[in-house]
Amino acid sequence: MTNRQVIVAELPQGSLTTDHFALQDAPMPEPADGEVLLRTILMSIDAANRSWMQGATYRDAVKAGDVMATYSICEVMVSNSDRLAVGDIVAAESVWADYVTHPARKVQKLPKVDQLSNLISVFGIAGKTAFHGLISVGKPMAGETVVVSAAAGSVGGYVGQIAKALGCRVVGIAGGPEKCEWVVKHLGFDACVDYREKGLFKALRAECPNGIDVYFDNVGGTILETTLALMNEKGRIACCGAISQYDSANPTGPRNLPGALVVRRLRMEGFIVMDFAHEDDKAIRALQTWVANGQIKVTEDIVEGLENAPAALIGLLAGDNKGKRMVRVGPDNL
Amino acid sequence: MTNRQVIVAELPQGSLTTDHFALQDAPMPEPADGEVLLRTILMSIDAANRSWMQGATYRDAVKAGDVMATYSICEVMVSNSDRLAVGDIVAAESVWADYVTHPARKVQKLPKVDQLSNLISVFGIAGKTAFHGLISVGKPMAGETVVVSAAAGSVGGYVGQIAKALGCRVVGIAGGPEKCEWVVKHLGFDACVDYREKGLFKALRAECPNGIDVYFDNVGGTILETTLALMNEKGRIACCGAISQYDSANPTGPRNLPGALVVRRLRMEGFIVMDFAHEDDKAIRALQTWVANGQIKVTEDIVEGLENAPAALIGLLAGDNKGKRMVRVGPDNL
Repeated sequence: MTNRQVIVAELPQGSLTTDHFALQDAPMPEPADGEVLLRTILMSIDAANRSWMQGATYRDAVKAGDVMATYSICEVMVSNSDRLAVGDIVAAESVWADYVTHPARKVQKLPKVDQLSNLISVFGIAGKTAFHGLISVGKPMAGETVVVSAAAGSVGGYVGQIAKALGCRVVGIAGGPEKCEWVVKHLGFDACVDYREKGLFKALRAECPNGIDVYFDNVGGTILETTLALMNEKGRIACCGAISQYDSANPTGPRNLPGALVVRRLRMEGFIVMDFAHEDDKAIRALQTWVANGQIKVTEDIVEGLENAPAALIGLLAGDNKGKRMVRVGPDNL
Repeated sequence: MTNRQVIVAELPQGSLTTDHFALQDAPMPEPADGEVLLRTILMSIDAANRSWMQGATYRDAVKAGDVMATYSICEVMVSNSDRLAVGDIVAAESVWADYVTHPARKVQKLPKVDQLSNLISVFGIAGKTAFHGLISVGKPMAGETVVVSAAAGSVGGYVGQIAKALGCRVVGIAGGPEKCEWVVKHLGFDACVDYREKGLFKALRAECPNGIDVYFDNVGGTILETTLALMNEKGRIACCGAISQYDSANPTGPRNLPGALVVRRLRMEGFIVMDFAHEDDKAIRALQTWVANGQIKVTEDIVEGLENAPAALIGLLAGDNKGKRMVRVGPDNL
């Protein structure tokens, strides 16, 4: 038996292409004492994956020759640990591969649910990132205006739906008329402006007649610069990511920083979902409530096959996806 | 009797020069009912004065033809209000002029103290800005490392001395070896690095072996960009001003924003001293305590004569001052 892996053949200098990856066959890994052999079921595809190739972030950098890193949901095939049994479903900081071994103590046992994909989307990294960033960093209140970029993306769609459930006016920013229409009609945002059109400032100002109180930023760059100019005094900016900056050799920051923060006393704060793990139970309970009562629609964008992971990530960086993108590697036997 | 005023003859496009100002004689103003006639004693010279010429900020923009705006300490010469009596000392949002009228309810009566200049420096706008920004926004703790830019300036010097009083390691950033030496030897900072020398990143890293927990930013631009790269996880950046950006037609933001905020979960927050007016009593009591026990040295840089106000502001933007700069317009009769 062999084990397919996708390695980073070469680190990108500019934009990421499929040539930066290579599919290879490796020997089947053998779990050591205390380890488990895992079969990958689903791999989360995130903009952050690309930022890992730019250097050390909140984790070590991904280097040329490494099997590409990911967050996965896997099934335990062999267990050399008392902690886990064959057939258990776990989440792991893992790699793009059919099979992988991990120390049992380093993976997290998951509940057996009807749809494993929900543990990556609404009840997983996407929903939890949206919840913690909006609630704990953005701190919105009913009646306030919340703007979110990458509104059709994995996190942005949940941010807007949560903000609507809280009674806010919600305006999305997305790329192209089709996505903008989907964000309003399917996800229920009050409005969505197309950043690819000219006049983002005017369009956003028209949709935010009372200014912006909370901006949930997934993109950085010039879109952040534009929203800064519309923030109300004491506004909050939850910095979740900067997808506009990852796939580039020359990142550029908004020109109006830090001036805009001083003039309007803004708070801009970065966060990572793992920082709020101690509040995950609260997040899941709230998300389950909103899904159950129809205030949150679960949006998933599933690409089939390990071999398509490079194209899935490249497409995500170009904004192809609607909802939480993931790759299905192995069948879900549940 | 005539009244000297300094008007903004022309708004600067690039750097501010004395040609942008003009001294003129105006008629003596007459206080209306409810107003007071004030004689200017001291005018605060602040980097923010220059930012007011770039457009509306937290106050209306200063326009060509306006008498230049300032924060002043004045003596009441004529009172048409029950609120104030002749001889009272007040603080006012005022202008560069010998005499001015204001509604009595718009000015603030001050205590009669030995040194009126202290009401602009350590117990005034400079000390209160340092206190509120460091304590309420930066939230430093003993043992943490605090970095402050414009360390020899009006606010920066107090920030560092307060942080030392709280038990922090304090590193300043200032321009030129003479100022850096003064910051360490006179103000008692642990170290001060010269941003005019090459290798700011390496020099700052060497002086902050445990990274930076709080950065009090007075300058923005490339110095902010450099400090961002050295911030510890969960670090706080108190955004007080961006003096590097005010005297320019083309402001530039740090290239590593918002990426650095996300990766290290930083909080960056703008503030203005007036936001914390409800806590001014606490600030003054703490500052008086530290001055009395020798932990804070009062630093003042007083320029004589209304006619020298333009040069005083231009010099401040170039970093000429050590300590809180102000212009003495009239004699202090107390």
